Amino acid sequence: MPDKVVQIKSSPKQNSENETEDQIIAKTLSRIKHKIMVMSGKGGVGKSTVAVHLALSLAQKGRKVGLLDVDLHGPSVPRMLGLEASLPGGAKPTAIIHSPNLSVVSIEPLMPDKDRSIIWRGPVKIGVIRQFISGIDWKDLDYLVIDCPPGTGDEPLTVAQTIPDAHALLVTTPQEVALADVRKSLDFCWQVKLPILGLVENMSGMVCPHCHEKIELFSSGGGKSMAEGYRIPFLGLIPFDPQIVRASESGKPFLKPYEELTNTVLERMEG
Amino acid sequence: MPDKVVQIKSSPKQNSENETEDQIIAKTLSRIKHKIMVMSGKGGVGKSTVAVHLALSLAQKGRKVGLLDVDLHGPSVPRMLGLEASLPGGAKPTAIIHSPNLSVVSIEPLMPDKDRSIIWRGPVKIGVIRQFISGIDWKDLDYLVIDCPPGTGDEPLTVAQTIPDAHALLVTTPQEVALADVRKSLDFCWQVKLPILGLVENMSGMVCPHCHEKIELFSSGGGKSMAEGYRIPFLGLIPFDPQIVRASESGKPFLKPYEELTNTVLERMEG
Repeated sequence: MPDKVVQIKSSPKQNSENETEDQIIAKTLSRIKHKIMVMSGKGGVGKSTVAVHLALSLAQKGRKVGLLDVDLHGPSVPRMLGLEASLPGGAKPTAIIHSPNLSVVSIEPLMPDKDRSIIWRGPVKIGVIRQFISGIDWKDLDYLVIDCPPGTGDEPLTVAQTIPDAHALLVTTPQEVALADVRKSLDFCWQVKLPILGLVENMSGMVCPHCHEKIELFSSGGGKSMAEGYRIPFLGLIPFDPQIVRASESGKPFLKPYEELTNTVLERMEG
Repeated sequence: MPDKVVQIKSSPKQNSENETEDQIIAKTLSRIKHKIMVMSGKGGVGKSTVAVHLALSLAQKGRKVGLLDVDLHGPSVPRMLGLEASLPGGAKPTAIIHSPNLSVVSIEPLMPDKDRSIIWRGPVKIGVIRQFISGIDWKDLDYLVIDCPPGTGDEPLTVAQTIPDAHALLVTTPQEVALADVRKSLDFCWQVKLPILGLVENMSGMVCPHCHEKIELFSSGGGKSMAEGYRIPFLGLIPFDPQIVRASESGKPFLKPYEELTNTVLERMEG
Protein backbone atom coordinates (compact mmCIF):
# COMPACT_ATOMS: atom_id res chain seq x y z
CA MET A 1 0.00 0.00 0.00
CA PRO A 2 2.75 2.55 0.59
CA ASP A 3 3.59 2.42 -3.16
CA LYS A 4 1.37 5.31 -4.13
CA VAL A 5 2.83 7.49 -1.41
CA VAL A 6 6.38 6.66 -2.31
CA GLN A 7 5.70 8.21 -5.71
CA ILE A 8 5.65 11.68 -4.21
CA LYS A 9 9.20 11.32 -3.02
CA SER A 10 11.73 13.21 -5.06
CA SER A 11 14.80 11.08 -4.70
CA PRO A 12 18.20 12.75 -4.32
CA LYS A 13 19.23 11.51 -7.77
CA GLN A 14 16.36 13.27 -9.48
CA ASN A 15 17.42 16.52 -7.89
CA SER A 16 19.95 18.45 -9.93
CA GLU A 17 21.90 19.58 -6.88
CA ASN A 18 21.96 16.06 -5.50
CA GLU A 19 20.58 17.18 -2.15
CA THR A 20 19.85 14.82 0.69
CA GLU A 21 16.30 14.59 2.05
CA ASP A 22 17.42 16.54 5.14
CA GLN A 23 18.63 19.39 2.96
CA ILE A 24 15.41 19.43 0.94
CA ILE A 25 13.39 19.51 4.17
CA ALA A 26 15.47 22.39 5.50
CA LYS A 27 15.02 24.33 2.26
CA THR A 28 11.25 23.72 2.20
CA LEU A 29 10.90 24.79 5.84
CA SER A 30 12.98 27.93 5.30
CA ARG A 31 10.19 29.20 3.03
CA ILE A 32 7.57 28.81 5.79
CA LYS A 33 7.52 31.56 8.43
CA HIS A 34 5.54 29.96 11.26
CA LYS A 35 4.91 26.31 12.03
CA ILE A 36 2.15 25.31 14.45
CA MET A 37 1.77 21.72 15.55
CA VAL A 38 -1.74 21.04 16.85
CA MET A 39 -1.51 18.29 19.46
CA SER A 40 -3.69 16.62 22.04
CA GLY A 41 -3.10 14.00 24.65
CA LYS A 42 -6.48 12.37 24.20
CA GLY A 43 -8.30 11.65 20.95
CA GLY A 44 -11.66 13.14 20.08
CA VAL A 45 -11.11 16.45 21.86
CA GLY A 46 -11.54 18.34 18.60
CA LYS A 47 -7.90 18.62 17.58
CA SER A 48 -8.61 18.31 13.85
CA THR A 49 -11.55 20.68 14.19
CA VAL A 50 -9.30 23.28 15.82
CA ALA A 51 -6.53 22.76 13.24
CA VAL A 52 -8.93 23.11 10.30
CA HIS A 53 -10.71 26.17 11.68
CA LEU A 54 -7.46 27.87 12.66
CA ALA A 55 -6.02 27.27 9.18
CA LEU A 56 -9.19 28.61 7.53
CA SER A 57 -9.30 31.67 9.79
CA LEU A 58 -5.64 32.51 9.18
CA ALA A 59 -6.23 32.17 5.42
CA GLN A 60 -9.29 34.37 5.65
CA LYS A 61 -7.15 37.02 7.34
CA GLY A 62 -4.86 37.07 4.32
CA ARG A 63 -2.12 34.72 5.45
CA LYS A 64 -0.75 32.07 3.08
CA VAL A 65 -1.47 28.84 4.95
CA GLY A 66 -0.54 25.20 4.48
CA LEU A 67 -2.44 22.52 6.39
CA LEU A 68 -0.56 19.26 6.84
CA ASP A 69 -2.54 16.32 8.19
CA VAL A 70 -0.14 13.78 9.70
CA ASP A 71 -2.94 11.69 11.20
CA LEU A 72 -2.28 8.74 8.92
CA HIS A 73 -4.66 6.22 10.48
CA GLY A 74 -7.63 8.53 10.91
CA PRO A 75 -7.32 11.61 8.71
CA SER A 76 -10.28 13.98 9.31
CA VAL A 77 -9.05 17.08 7.48
CA PRO A 78 -10.21 16.17 3.94
CA ARG A 79 -13.77 15.43 5.08
CA MET A 80 -13.98 18.58 7.22
CA LEU A 81 -12.91 20.69 4.26
CA GLY A 82 -15.07 18.82 1.75
CA LEU A 83 -11.96 17.97 -0.27
CA GLU A 84 -12.59 15.51 -3.06
CA ALA A 85 -9.50 16.19 -5.17
CA SER A 86 -6.43 14.00 -5.36
CA LEU A 87 -2.98 15.38 -4.78
CA PRO A 88 -1.82 16.84 -8.11
CA GLY A 89 0.92 14.74 -9.74
CA GLY A 90 4.13 15.91 -11.42
CA ALA A 91 7.83 15.75 -10.66
CA LYS A 92 7.24 17.58 -7.39
CA PRO A 93 3.51 17.72 -6.66
CA THR A 94 1.98 20.73 -4.95
CA ALA A 95 -0.48 20.52 -2.09
CA ILE A 96 -4.22 20.50 -2.88
CA ILE A 97 -5.41 24.07 -3.33
CA HIS A 98 -8.46 24.47 -1.10
CA SER A 99 -8.79 28.23 -1.63
CA PRO A 100 -6.36 30.94 -2.80
CA ASN A 101 -4.68 31.16 0.61
CA LEU A 102 -5.00 27.56 1.82
CA SER A 103 -3.31 24.43 0.51
CA VAL A 104 -3.68 21.02 2.11
CA VAL A 105 -1.85 17.70 2.27
CA SER A 106 -3.33 14.56 3.82
CA ILE A 107 -2.78 10.85 3.28
CA GLU A 108 -6.37 10.26 2.22
CA PRO A 109 -6.29 11.85 -1.25
CA LEU A 110 -3.21 9.73 -1.97
CA MET A 111 -4.93 6.45 -1.31
CA PRO A 112 -6.79 4.60 -4.06
CA ASP A 113 -9.68 3.82 -1.68
CA LYS A 114 -10.41 6.14 1.22
CA ASP A 115 -12.08 3.38 3.25
CA ARG A 116 -8.88 1.30 3.24
CA SER A 117 -7.02 1.26 6.54
CA ILE A 118 -3.43 2.39 6.78
CA ILE A 119 -1.79 -0.51 8.60
CA TRP A 120 1.69 0.94 8.80
CA ARG A 121 4.12 0.47 11.60
CA GLY A 122 6.19 3.36 12.95
CA PRO A 123 9.19 3.41 10.60
CA VAL A 124 7.00 3.62 7.48
CA LYS A 125 5.03 6.48 9.04
CA ILE A 126 8.22 8.41 9.80
CA GLY A 127 9.24 8.14 6.13
CA VAL A 128 5.84 9.27 4.88
CA ILE A 129 5.72 12.31 7.17
CA ARG A 130 9.18 13.38 6.04
CA GLN A 131 8.07 12.99 2.42
CA PHE A 132 5.07 15.19 3.14
CA ILE A 133 7.60 17.97 3.67
CA SER A 134 10.45 17.03 1.32
CA GLY A 135 8.41 15.64 -1.55
CA ILE A 136 5.80 18.38 -1.88
CA ASP A 137 6.19 21.89 -3.23
CA TRP A 138 4.59 23.92 -0.45
CA LYS A 139 5.75 27.26 -1.94
CA ASP A 140 6.12 30.32 0.31
CA LEU A 141 3.85 30.18 3.34
CA ASP A 142 3.14 32.37 6.35
CA TYR A 143 1.83 29.40 8.36
CA LEU A 144 2.06 25.65 8.27
CA VAL A 145 -0.59 24.16 10.58
CA ILE A 146 0.10 20.50 11.33
CA ASP A 147 -2.70 18.25 12.56
CA CYS A 148 -1.12 15.43 14.60
CA PRO A 149 -2.86 12.28 15.80
CA PRO A 150 -3.42 12.14 19.57
CA GLY A 151 -0.67 11.01 21.91
CA THR A 152 3.08 11.20 21.96
CA GLY A 153 4.08 8.50 19.49
CA ASP A 154 5.84 8.32 16.16
CA GLU A 155 3.86 11.02 14.35
CA PRO A 156 4.27 13.99 16.75
CA LEU A 157 7.83 12.91 17.55
CA THR A 158 8.70 12.86 13.84
CA VAL A 159 7.15 16.30 13.34
CA ALA A 160 8.99 17.72 16.35
CA GLN A 161 12.30 16.30 15.16
CA THR A 162 11.82 17.27 11.51
CA ILE A 163 10.57 20.83 12.13
CA PRO A 164 12.88 22.25 14.80
CA ASP A 165 11.16 25.67 14.96
CA ALA A 166 7.60 24.35 15.37
CA HIS A 167 5.36 25.59 18.19
CA ALA A 168 2.88 23.32 19.96
CA LEU A 169 -0.78 24.26 20.26
CA LEU A 170 -2.41 21.88 22.73
CA VAL A 171 -6.11 21.06 22.61
CA THR A 172 -8.03 19.53 25.48
CA THR A 173 -11.54 19.02 26.77
CA PRO A 174 -12.17 20.00 30.39
CA GLN A 175 -12.62 16.59 32.05
CA GLU A 176 -9.88 15.04 34.17
CA VAL A 177 -9.32 12.02 31.87
CA ALA A 178 -8.40 14.46 29.08
CA LEU A 179 -6.36 16.77 31.32
CA ALA A 180 -4.30 13.81 32.50
CA ASP A 181 -3.31 13.21 28.90
CA VAL A 182 -2.51 16.89 28.32
CA ARG A 183 -0.05 16.73 31.20
CA LYS A 184 1.68 14.01 29.20
CA SER A 185 1.66 16.22 26.10
CA LEU A 186 3.23 19.04 28.11
CA ASP A 187 5.92 16.69 29.33
CA PHE A 188 6.49 15.63 25.71
CA CYS A 189 6.97 19.28 24.68
CA TRP A 190 9.44 19.85 27.51
CA GLN A 191 11.35 16.68 26.73
CA VAL A 192 11.71 17.38 23.01
CA LYS A 193 12.16 21.14 23.67
CA LEU A 194 9.12 22.18 21.67
CA PRO A 195 7.97 25.71 22.59
CA ILE A 196 4.33 25.85 23.72
CA LEU A 197 2.14 28.36 21.91
CA GLY A 198 -0.69 27.64 24.32
CA LEU A 199 -3.64 25.53 25.37
CA VAL A 200 -7.21 25.62 24.02
CA GLU A 201 -10.13 24.25 26.03
CA ASN A 202 -12.59 22.74 23.58
CA MET A 203 -16.15 21.39 24.10
CA SER A 204 -16.28 23.59 27.14
CA GLY A 205 -19.93 23.23 28.05
CA MET A 206 -22.83 23.70 25.65
CA VAL A 207 -26.11 25.57 25.56
CA CYS A 208 -29.25 23.46 25.15
CA PRO A 209 -30.73 24.34 21.76
CA HIS A 210 -34.22 23.91 23.26
CA CYS A 211 -34.22 25.62 26.67
CA HIS A 212 -30.93 27.56 26.30
CA GLU A 213 -29.72 26.43 29.72
CA LYS A 214 -26.03 25.65 30.05
CA ILE A 215 -25.08 21.95 30.10
CA GLU A 216 -21.71 20.83 31.41
CA LEU A 217 -20.84 18.05 28.99
CA PHE A 218 -17.40 17.40 30.36
CA SER A 219 -17.51 20.08 33.07
CA SER A 220 -15.70 23.31 32.14
CA GLY A 221 -12.75 25.48 33.10
CA GLY A 222 -10.40 22.52 33.63
CA GLY A 223 -8.17 23.52 30.72
CA LYS A 224 -8.04 27.14 31.80
CA SER A 225 -7.01 26.40 35.37
CA MET A 226 -4.49 23.87 34.12
CA ALA A 227 -2.88 26.48 31.86
CA GLU A 228 -2.69 28.84 34.82
CA GLY A 229 -1.22 26.14 37.03
CA TYR A 230 1.51 25.30 34.55
CA ARG A 231 1.96 28.96 33.50
CA ILE A 232 1.42 28.27 29.85
CA PRO A 233 -0.60 30.67 27.67
CA PHE A 234 -4.34 29.98 27.64
CA LEU A 235 -5.77 30.52 24.17
CA GLY A 236 -9.48 30.39 24.95
CA LEU A 237 -12.58 28.33 25.63
CA ILE A 238 -14.59 26.97 22.71
CA PRO A 239 -18.06 25.71 23.64
CA PHE A 240 -19.48 22.51 22.17
CA ASP A 241 -21.93 23.37 19.44
CA PRO A 242 -23.82 20.76 17.40
CA GLN A 243 -23.87 23.41 14.63
CA ILE A 244 -20.05 23.14 14.38
CA VAL A 245 -20.38 19.35 14.08
CA ARG A 246 -22.98 19.67 11.32
CA ALA A 247 -20.99 22.36 9.52
CA SER A 248 -17.86 20.19 9.67
CA GLU A 249 -19.87 17.20 8.43
CA SER A 250 -20.96 19.09 5.35
CA GLY A 251 -17.44 20.28 4.59
CA LYS A 252 -18.45 23.92 5.23
CA PRO A 253 -16.90 24.87 8.58
CA PHE A 254 -17.99 28.07 10.28
CA LEU A 255 -15.40 30.27 11.82
CA LYS A 256 -16.99 32.56 14.37
CA PRO A 257 -16.13 30.50 17.49
CA TYR A 258 -12.48 30.51 16.40
CA GLU A 259 -12.12 34.27 16.00
CA GLU A 260 -10.57 34.88 19.41
CA LEU A 261 -8.22 31.91 19.14
CA THR A 262 -7.00 33.05 15.72
CA ASN A 263 -6.37 36.60 16.91
CA THR A 264 -4.43 35.35 19.91
CA VAL A 265 -2.33 33.08 17.70
CA LEU A 266 -1.58 35.96 15.30
CA GLU A 267 -0.63 38.20 18.19
CA ARG A 268 1.67 35.64 19.73
CA MET A 269 3.33 34.52 16.48
CA GLU A 270 3.62 37.91 14.76
CA GLY A 271 3.24 40.44 17.55
CA MET B 1 12.20 5.24 30.39
CA PRO B 2 11.35 1.70 29.22
CA ASP B 3 13.64 0.33 31.99
CA LYS B 4 10.91 -0.07 34.54
CA VAL B 5 8.70 -1.91 32.06
CA VAL B 6 11.48 -4.20 30.97
CA GLN B 7 11.61 -5.45 34.54
CA ILE B 8 8.32 -7.25 34.10
CA LYS B 9 9.76 -9.35 31.34
CA SER B 10 10.57 -12.87 32.32
CA SER B 11 13.47 -13.66 30.07
CA PRO B 12 13.69 -17.14 28.52
CA LYS B 13 16.71 -17.92 30.68
CA GLN B 14 14.83 -17.28 33.91
CA ASN B 15 12.22 -19.76 32.87
CA SER B 16 13.00 -23.28 33.90
CA GLU B 17 11.62 -24.79 30.71
CA ASN B 18 13.59 -22.33 28.61
CA GLU B 19 10.53 -21.29 26.66
CA THR B 20 10.58 -18.61 24.01
CA GLU B 21 8.38 -15.53 24.47
CA ASP B 22 6.05 -16.86 21.77
CA GLN B 23 5.57 -20.07 23.74
CA ILE B 24 4.90 -18.19 26.97
CA ILE B 25 2.36 -16.00 25.20
CA ALA B 26 0.61 -19.06 23.75
CA LYS B 27 0.49 -20.71 27.17
CA THR B 28 -0.87 -17.55 28.85
CA LEU B 29 -3.54 -17.13 26.17
CA SER B 30 -4.59 -20.77 26.39
CA ARG B 31 -5.81 -20.05 29.93
CA ILE B 32 -8.09 -17.24 28.71
CA LYS B 33 -11.37 -18.31 27.12
CA HIS B 34 -12.50 -15.19 25.27
CA LYS B 35 -10.47 -12.22 24.05
CA ILE B 36 -12.21 -9.00 23.06
CA MET B 37 -10.25 -6.19 21.48
CA VAL B 38 -12.06 -2.86 21.85
CA MET B 39 -11.13 -0.67 18.88
CA SER B 40 -12.17 2.60 17.31
CA GLY B 41 -11.15 4.41 14.19
CA LYS B 42 -11.38 7.84 15.79
CA GLY B 43 -10.21 8.89 19.23
CA GLY B 44 -12.53 10.23 21.89
CA VAL B 45 -15.53 8.13 20.89
CA GLY B 46 -15.62 6.49 24.31
CA LYS B 47 -13.59 3.38 23.55
CA SER B 48 -11.96 3.23 26.98
CA THR B 49 -15.29 3.99 28.63
CA VAL B 50 -16.89 1.07 26.79
CA ALA B 51 -13.95 -1.25 27.55
CA VAL B 52 -13.98 -0.40 31.27
CA HIS B 53 -17.74 -0.69 31.66
CA LEU B 54 -17.90 -3.93 29.69
CA ALA B 55 -15.14 -5.43 31.84
CA LEU B 56 -16.89 -4.32 35.04
CA SER B 57 -20.26 -5.65 33.88
CA LEU B 58 -18.83 -9.02 32.87
CA ALA B 59 -17.09 -9.24 36.27
CA GLN B 60 -20.32 -8.33 38.03
CA LYS B 61 -22.03 -11.19 36.21
CA GLY B 62 -19.54 -13.61 37.71
CA ARG B 63 -17.00 -13.90 34.92
CA LYS B 64 -13.28 -13.78 35.67
CA VAL B 65 -12.11 -10.78 33.67
CA GLY B 66 -8.75 -9.27 32.77
CA LEU B 67 -8.59 -5.73 31.42
CA LEU B 68 -5.48 -4.96 29.41
CA ASP B 69 -4.90 -1.31 28.49
CA VAL B 70 -2.57 -1.13 25.49
CA ASP B 71 -3.08 2.61 25.01
CA LEU B 72 0.48 3.46 25.97
CA HIS B 73 0.45 7.19 25.17
CA GLY B 74 -2.89 8.02 26.75
CA PRO B 75 -3.99 5.33 29.20
CA SER B 76 -7.44 6.14 30.62
CA VAL B 77 -8.28 2.86 32.32
CA PRO B 78 -6.50 3.45 35.67
CA ARG B 79 -8.22 6.83 36.19
CA MET B 80 -11.64 5.49 35.20
CA LEU B 81 -11.30 2.67 37.71
CA GLY B 82 -9.80 4.86 40.42
CA LEU B 83 -6.70 2.64 40.49
CA GLU B 84 -3.89 3.99 42.57
CA ALA B 85 -1.91 0.82 43.07
CA SER B 86 1.27 -0.11 41.31
CA LEU B 87 1.66 -3.40 39.52
CA PRO B 88 2.71 -5.95 42.12
CA GLY B 89 6.33 -7.03 41.72
CA GLY B 90 7.81 -10.53 41.95
CA ALA B 91 9.34 -13.02 39.56
CA LYS B 92 6.20 -12.98 37.45
CA PRO B 93 3.97 -10.13 38.63
CA THR B 94 0.20 -10.51 38.59
CA ALA B 95 -2.19 -7.88 37.26
CA ILE B 96 -3.62 -5.30 39.67
CA ILE B 97 -6.62 -6.77 41.45
CA HIS B 98 -9.44 -4.25 41.09
CA SER B 99 -12.12 -6.51 42.56
CA PRO B 100 -12.40 -10.28 43.05
CA ASN B 101 -13.34 -10.86 39.40
CA LEU B 102 -11.41 -8.09 37.70
CA SER B 103 -7.66 -7.66 37.28
CA VAL B 104 -6.08 -4.85 35.30
CA VAL B 105 -2.82 -4.08 33.54
CA SER B 106 -1.93 -0.65 32.17
CA ILE B 107 1.31 1.18 31.51
CA GLU B 108 0.52 3.95 33.98
CA PRO B 109 1.00 2.08 37.26
CA LEU B 110 4.39 0.98 35.92
CA MET B 111 5.66 4.49 35.41
CA PRO B 112 7.42 6.39 38.19
CA ASP B 113 5.50 9.59 37.32
CA LYS B 114 2.07 9.34 35.73
CA ASP B 115 2.35 12.79 34.14
CA ARG B 116 5.42 11.74 32.17
CA SER B 117 4.81 11.17 28.48
CA ILE B 118 5.61 7.86 26.85
CA ILE B 119 7.69 8.91 23.85
CA TRP B 120 8.20 5.47 22.38
CA ARG B 121 8.43 4.62 18.75
CA GLY B 122 6.66 1.57 17.29
CA PRO B 123 9.18 -1.23 17.91
CA VAL B 124 9.40 -0.47 21.65
CA LYS B 125 5.62 -0.46 21.89
CA ILE B 126 5.39 -3.86 20.22
CA GLY B 127 7.80 -5.29 22.80
CA VAL B 128 5.90 -3.78 25.73
CA ILE B 129 2.53 -5.10 24.54
CA ARG B 130 3.96 -8.59 24.13
CA GLN B 131 5.40 -8.37 27.65
CA PHE B 132 1.97 -7.39 28.96
CA ILE B 133 0.93 -10.90 27.97
CA SER B 134 4.10 -12.94 28.41
CA GLY B 135 5.48 -11.22 31.50
CA ILE B 136 2.35 -11.12 33.64
CA ASP B 137 0.58 -13.93 35.41
CA TRP B 138 -3.00 -13.40 34.27
CA LYS B 139 -4.20 -16.72 35.76
CA ASP B 140 -7.34 -18.40 34.40
CA LEU B 141 -9.76 -15.93 32.85
CA ASP B 142 -13.12 -16.09 31.14
CA TYR B 143 -12.53 -12.79 29.34
CA LEU B 144 -9.61 -10.58 28.44
CA VAL B 145 -10.86 -7.15 27.37
CA ILE B 146 -8.19 -5.17 25.56
CA ASP B 147 -8.46 -1.39 25.30
CA CYS B 148 -6.55 -0.29 22.17
CA PRO B 149 -5.63 3.26 21.21
CA PRO B 150 -7.57 4.64 18.22
CA GLY B 151 -6.51 3.87 14.68
CA THR B 152 -4.85 0.99 12.93
CA GLY B 153 -1.22 1.38 13.92
CA ASP B 154 1.33 -0.57 15.89
CA GLU B 155 -0.77 -1.24 19.00
CA PRO B 156 -3.89 -2.85 17.47
CA LEU B 157 -1.76 -4.62 14.87
CA THR B 158 0.45 -6.09 17.60
CA VAL B 159 -2.60 -7.23 19.56
CA ALA B 160 -4.17 -8.80 16.46
CA GLN B 161 -0.96 -10.62 15.59
CA THR B 162 -0.21 -11.71 19.16
CA ILE B 163 -3.73 -12.90 20.04
CA PRO B 164 -4.90 -14.89 17.02
CA ASP B 165 -8.32 -15.76 18.48
CA ALA B 166 -9.28 -12.19 19.49
CA HIS B 167 -12.60 -10.68 18.43
CA ALA B 168 -12.96 -7.00 17.57
CA LEU B 169 -15.56 -4.81 19.24
CA LEU B 170 -15.76 -1.52 17.35
CA VAL B 171 -16.89 1.70 19.01
CA THR B 172 -18.02 4.77 17.09
CA THR B 173 -19.96 7.98 17.54
CA PRO B 174 -22.67 8.66 14.97
CA GLN B 175 -21.15 11.54 12.97
CA GLU B 176 -19.68 10.98 9.51
CA VAL B 177 -16.10 11.94 10.50
CA ALA B 178 -16.16 9.08 13.02
CA LEU B 179 -17.91 6.63 10.70
CA ALA B 180 -15.29 7.26 8.01
CA ASP B 181 -12.67 6.07 10.49
CA VAL B 182 -14.73 3.02 11.46
CA ARG B 183 -14.78 1.96 7.83
CA LYS B 184 -10.98 1.96 8.08
CA SER B 185 -11.17 -0.16 11.25
CA LEU B 186 -13.45 -2.63 9.47
CA ASP B 187 -10.98 -2.83 6.61
CA PHE B 188 -8.23 -3.44 9.18
CA CYS B 189 -10.21 -6.35 10.67
CA TRP B 190 -10.75 -7.88 7.25
CA GLN B 191 -7.13 -7.46 6.28
CA VAL B 192 -5.72 -9.03 9.44
CA LYS B 193 -8.58 -11.59 9.55
CA LEU B 194 -9.89 -10.48 12.91
CA PRO B 195 -13.49 -11.65 13.49
CA ILE B 196 -15.88 -8.78 14.27
CA LEU B 197 -17.94 -9.17 17.42
CA GLY B 198 -19.93 -6.06 16.54
CA LEU B 199 -20.28 -2.30 16.53
CA VAL B 200 -21.45 -0.04 19.38
CA GLU B 201 -22.78 3.45 18.72
CA ASN B 202 -21.72 5.66 21.62
CA MET B 203 -22.65 9.26 22.51
CA SER B 204 -25.79 8.69 20.51
CA GLY B 205 -27.72 11.82 21.37
CA MET B 206 -28.34 13.10 24.89
CA VAL B 207 -31.27 14.31 26.94
CA CYS B 208 -31.03 17.88 28.28
CA PRO B 209 -30.82 17.62 32.07
CA HIS B 210 -32.90 20.84 32.34
CA CYS B 211 -35.76 20.54 29.83
CA HIS B 212 -35.43 16.80 29.04
CA GLU B 213 -35.62 17.42 25.29
CA LYS B 214 -33.41 15.27 23.08
CA ILE B 215 -30.24 16.91 21.75
CA GLU B 216 -28.41 15.43 18.78
CA LEU B 217 -24.79 15.98 19.80
CA PHE B 218 -23.28 14.19 16.84
CA SER B 219 -26.57 13.21 15.20
CA SER B 220 -27.64 9.60 15.90
CA GLY B 221 -28.27 6.28 14.19
CA GLY B 222 -25.19 6.54 11.96
CA GLY B 223 -23.48 3.57 13.61
CA LYS B 224 -26.61 1.44 13.48
CA SER B 225 -27.24 1.99 9.78
CA MET B 226 -23.56 1.44 9.08
CA ALA B 227 -23.65 -1.93 10.86
CA GLU B 228 -26.69 -2.87 8.80
CA GLY B 229 -25.01 -1.73 5.58
CA TYR B 230 -21.91 -3.81 6.24
CA ARG B 231 -23.91 -6.70 7.76
CA ILE B 232 -21.94 -6.71 10.98
CA PRO B 233 -23.67 -7.27 14.34
CA PHE B 234 -24.97 -4.08 15.96
CA LEU B 235 -24.45 -4.17 19.72
CA GLY B 236 -26.51 -1.17 20.77
CA LEU B 237 -26.80 2.60 21.16
CA ILE B 238 -25.38 4.25 24.27
CA PRO B 239 -26.56 7.84 24.82
CA PHE B 240 -24.20 10.57 26.00
CA ASP B 241 -24.73 11.20 29.67
CA PRO B 242 -22.78 13.78 31.70
CA GLN B 243 -23.45 11.46 34.67
CA ILE B 244 -21.29 8.76 33.02
CA VAL B 245 -18.50 11.34 32.55
CA ARG B 246 -18.69 12.41 36.18
CA ALA B 247 -18.87 8.81 37.40
CA SER B 248 -15.83 7.90 35.30
CA GLU B 249 -14.03 11.00 36.59
CA SER B 250 -14.49 9.89 40.15
CA GLY B 251 -13.31 6.35 39.44
CA LYS B 252 -16.78 4.96 40.21
CA PRO B 253 -18.31 3.99 36.87
CA PHE B 254 -21.99 3.16 36.72
CA LEU B 255 -23.10 0.21 34.67
CA LYS B 256 -26.77 0.51 33.79
CA PRO B 257 -26.30 1.94 30.26
CA TYR B 258 -24.02 -1.02 29.46
CA GLU B 259 -26.45 -3.77 30.51
CA GLU B 260 -27.75 -4.51 27.02
CA LEU B 261 -24.28 -4.42 25.46
CA THR B 262 -22.95 -6.85 28.06
CA ASN B 263 -25.82 -9.27 27.58
CA THR B 264 -25.36 -9.20 23.82
CA VAL B 265 -21.63 -9.84 24.20
CA LEU B 266 -22.28 -12.77 26.57
CA GLU B 267 -24.81 -14.21 24.18
CA ARG B 268 -22.52 -13.93 21.18
CA MET B 269 -19.39 -15.21 22.92
CA GLU B 270 -20.94 -17.97 25.03
CA GLY B 271 -24.31 -18.64 23.41
